[in-house]
Amino acid sequence: MKLSKLIGERFKDKPTDCVIDSHALMMRGGYMKDIAKGIYSQYPPLKRICQKIENIIREEMDAIDGQEVLFPVVMSSTIWEESGRYESIGQEMLRFTDRNGAKMLLGMTHEEAAVHLVRDYANSYQNYPFMIYQIQTKFRDEARPRAGLIRVREFTMKDAYSFHTSQEDLEAYYQVVYDAYNRIFARAGVPEVITVASDSGMMGGSVAHEYMLLTPVGEDSLAICEDEACDYRANMEAAKSIINNQKNGSDEELKEVYTPNIQTIEEICGFLKTPLEQSCKAVIYQKNVDDEFVVIFIRGDLDVNETKLTNYLGEAVHPGVITPECGLHAGYTGPVGLKVAGKPTVIYDESLKGTNNLSCGANKDEYHYTGLCMERDIPDAEYVDVAKITEGGICPKCGKPTITIKRGIEVGNIFQLGTKYTKSMHMTYLDADGKEQTPIMGCYGIGVGRLAASVCEAHHDEYGPIWPISIAPWQVHLCCLRADDQATHDFADKLYADLQKQGVEVIYDDRNARPGVMFSDADLLGVPIRLVVSPRNMGEGVVEVVTRDKSVQEKVATGEIIAYTNELINKLSGK
Amino acid sequence: MKLSKLIGERFKDKPTDCVIDSHALMMRGGYMKDIAKGIYSQYPPLKRICQKIENIIREEMDAIDGQEVLFPVVMSSTIWEESGRYESIGQEMLRFTDRNGAKMLLGMTHEEAAVHLVRDYANSYQNYPFMIYQIQTKFRDEARPRAGLIRVREFTMKDAYSFHTSQEDLEAYYQVVYDAYNRIFARAGVPEVITVASDSGMMGGSVAHEYMLLTPVGEDSLAICEDEACDYRANMEAAKSIINNQKNGSDEELKEVYTPNIQTIEEICGFLKTPLEQSCKAVIYQKNVDDEFVVIFIRGDLDVNETKLTNYLGEAVHPGVITPECGLHAGYTGPVGLKVAGKPTVIYDESLKGTNNLSCGANKDEYHYTGLCMERDIPDAEYVDVAKITEGGICPKCGKPTITIKRGIEVGNIFQLGTKYTKSMHMTYLDADGKEQTPIMGCYGIGVGRLAASVCEAHHDEYGPIWPISIAPWQVHLCCLRADDQATHDFADKLYADLQKQGVEVIYDDRNARPGVMFSDADLLGVPIRLVVSPRNMGEGVVEVVTRDKSVQEKVATGEIIAYTNELINKLSGK
Repeated sequence: MKLSKLIGERFKDKPTDCVIDSHALMMRGGYMKDIAKGIYSQYPPLKRICQKIENIIREEMDAIDGQEVLFPVVMSSTIWEESGRYESIGQEMLRFTDRNGAKMLLGMTHEEAAVHLVRDYANSYQNYPFMIYQIQTKFRDEARPRAGLIRVREFTMKDAYSFHTSQEDLEAYYQVVYDAYNRIFARAGVPEVITVASDSGMMGGSVAHEYMLLTPVGEDSLAICEDEACDYRANMEAAKSIINNQKNGSDEELKEVYTPNIQTIEEICGFLKTPLEQSCKAVIYQKNVDDEFVVIFIRGDLDVNETKLTNYLGEAVHPGVITPECGLHAGYTGPVGLKVAGKPTVIYDESLKGTNNLSCGANKDEYHYTGLCMERDIPDAEYVDVAKITEGGICPKCGKPTITIKRGIEVGNIFQLGTKYTKSMHMTYLDADGKEQTPIMGCYGIGVGRLAASVCEAHHDEYGPIWPISIAPWQVHLCCLRADDQATHDFADKLYADLQKQGVEVIYDDRNARPGVMFSDADLLGVPIRLVVSPRNMGEGVVEVVTRDKSVQEKVATGEIIAYTNELINKLSGK
Repeated sequence: MKLSKLIGERFKDKPTDCVIDSHALMMRGGYMKDIAKGIYSQYPPLKRICQKIENIIREEMDAIDGQEVLFPVVMSSTIWEESGRYESIGQEMLRFTDRNGAKMLLGMTHEEAAVHLVRDYANSYQNYPFMIYQIQTKFRDEARPRAGLIRVREFTMKDAYSFHTSQEDLEAYYQVVYDAYNRIFARAGVPEVITVASDSGMMGGSVAHEYMLLTPVGEDSLAICEDEACDYRANMEAAKSIINNQKNGSDEELKEVYTPNIQTIEEICGFLKTPLEQSCKAVIYQKNVDDEFVVIFIRGDLDVNETKLTNYLGEAVHPGVITPECGLHAGYTGPVGLKVAGKPTVIYDESLKGTNNLSCGANKDEYHYTGLCMERDIPDAEYVDVAKITEGGICPKCGKPTITIKRGIEVGNIFQLGTKYTKSMHMTYLDADGKEQTPIMGCYGIGVGRLAASVCEAHHDEYGPIWPISIAPWQVHLCCLRADDQATHDFADKLYADLQKQGVEVIYDDRNARPGVMFSDADLLGVPIRLVVSPRNMGEGVVEVVTRDKSVQEKVATGEIIAYTNELINKLSGK
């Protein structure tokens, strides 16, 4: 490919709406152009990167006996009504009607389509296990698309679905996919991707892992145990918060205190001169479905993790709006004498279990209690874990206070789904004894564009991406300085032709441009090997070879440049 | 791939809703499953076929300097409002709003997206010419999806867009694509695909060609000149109807005739004992936009081609509904004394030009005229060509009455678009003199799934498809008869492994099934080379080799089977 013909613009200034480097560099390098919020067209360099990623994924899926299929982007609501997700998924699923008024939707995941495709076929235990996958466009109507390809509305995804006759078989295959995913990320140039235990959310099922690229600009918060002997890593949404509660002296009397204009937990603890840990905070939500109140009591220094809360409730909530009629006293809500209109749900976080001598709201304006003793005053409390794990918190695995919180981008996920979809969609098979059984599923996703952006996020400098050769848009970037010099131009033309004959992927900058322009364009395209042909190099009988990461900077004799380049490609490819 | 693990069902009975063979065979062979009307999921065999077709297309597009990009499936209405097509395209474009109420649509073609992608970049004549293409999912909300993959709602399409600075340059590149398309269809196994001149319809532009596979089950009607020296071929929608009119004796007097209960053109000509050619028929439409009447007068033996009519009018019409108020007399409409309410459009087909002594309606109930002489009675008539060309009609190219009408499936199309999109979307470039100019576009499409179905339609027998090796799901179908015989099974296993090691794509029927089941499944999968391993063949020291088209039926010594198979693959591949 000649750079003079490559479509797309490259420019210097960071677009104002780019908050992360990969977004800015991929806009500046002519990789993509947005056609609507969170919806991009791809220029050739990005298309080539994505295609290479897809090929790596395809090879690894085929290697673990995956069968490639294709599901539609547009689906009828019918199968989604069978699974119950037509109702349960929110606005991120784009629903519409076709010209005949039939209810349709855009696929954001394809569990239902997978069951639909195989439920007639896989009616005997002899058909199992099997795994099917597709690489296809998906649409998710995100409320806030952002960060370039990290959070978009339309994206290409590899999604795979496995079907099994036993939990053991699912678990064994889950491990096989787990390993294949590690190979995929390593081959795509981000071996530093780690797995964390995750919450299965709207997918259903229990065991699930996410593959995370650690980066301060990541959207997810992860709890990681820093103890070297421990390997605990979890998404904060899935991390159990452990509090080793101890009584604080002997139980005091429950006492009303006049606390005018004191409403926040910080204010009341400041007023009483007690630490936050010595208080019981109320956090108030309402259920989305019927606006009934959900009141959570939690230790004053901790926060509620809303994902853990909604998982416990089995439904979505929003921050509560306190009205005069609801019975709650804003800023003065406490567990003793609590009265709430309607059918409230009251939850006690485990951080309060066994604690005593706490301050809390007294359920009347301008008054708090001190001396709250949970066992004595709220003997019937049931405790659940809805707290956010904190930096320095206790590791749920090794028990040491060695939790650190890091941020990451999710580049893939794997789920043990169980029978959520097969059961609701009435997929069955006959076992060896002729008995009807329900198959067990796993599902496994990787976002192609997000992986491309994540590799860029992990490997770039201020001048552009530093693409690993396995997914780079081209292997070699050939620059002809002084294209107006006939001999130089001729030599570069011949080198371009010779490299292509050898099967090398070359982007050839044949423009009559200044070296500064050429090199900054080359940096933005991020191709691993740069060859520079110039009158000066010609005079010395050499071609300059520089890798994008500067690990190689050599002058190579013109007669050896083809062999040298091929060797360098092999070396960078790990061959 | 082992057949025992291949997902999908194969069955014997033709599904009742299948009107064409390719549809029935692809359902019966486990190629696809419908998830909604005209929306299919693909099982692995079809996915593999489509991927091979896509690779052939990709290679040929790259070879003519195409740059692969990716446009989104979901687009904002904005750019479609710029081009005017958001309004002008009918219900086949699926429109909806996103969660924020923004108007969105599903792409059924991507001219607007192509201009959007390059209009900032290609601002200098030096950037031209260039061609971009994508292979992507499209959606078209067809009123009547039918015939399996021939007319679907969701489909994968290769669409390409070229940009030029002169009509000459567009024409030269148009020829390059024309030839590339011929190579694509030849490589995909249907060299019999022909080109026909076509109507450019909603795409705009003038010169256009369609690639047609001739088959009686095709949806399009084609006018083809049977004269060996002539190469005229056109879609009936684009074929000029030529009538060499002659006067029929000297002009008679216009005379009113009482014709009670005689309304159709056949009835009046029967009554008058004159041929249909000696009459002037009225055909009545109304414009979709405002219901104003459109009255077409045409020679009695000919029919109106609605596409030619709407192209002439520049807007869509529907059959007219004659009410008492509209002034028209159903069955008695004629050109003399015609009165129609509103602002009617009256059109005379060229078939009437210069004719005389015709019968026609007298614009009052139960009366016709005879002796209508066009020049004398309708001196101001403007004649246009809106007639359907007919079997035995005059060839617009060679002038002989050698037109035959055939049916075909459109497998590809190419258009010279002109400046319809670049002008409306304000794409400009500076020419060598620094003057602002509007680039000229071409666009070029191939439907991947439809091509797969067309190949099946062209190459099948009653037992299944006969896939050309270039797009077959596998190259070799290995059958192990009597898999319960250990030695036979071991030999087949080893042959399977050895072939795969050589890079041969093998589907291996390792089931313990009856030969009849195995062979009918093999026929349905349509793989070109079948290898049969059996105890009897083992006894003779041979493997049976049969091609799906029966052109090869050999017994090959076991020691030579690998080499023989490789040679046969090369031979079938034309290498």
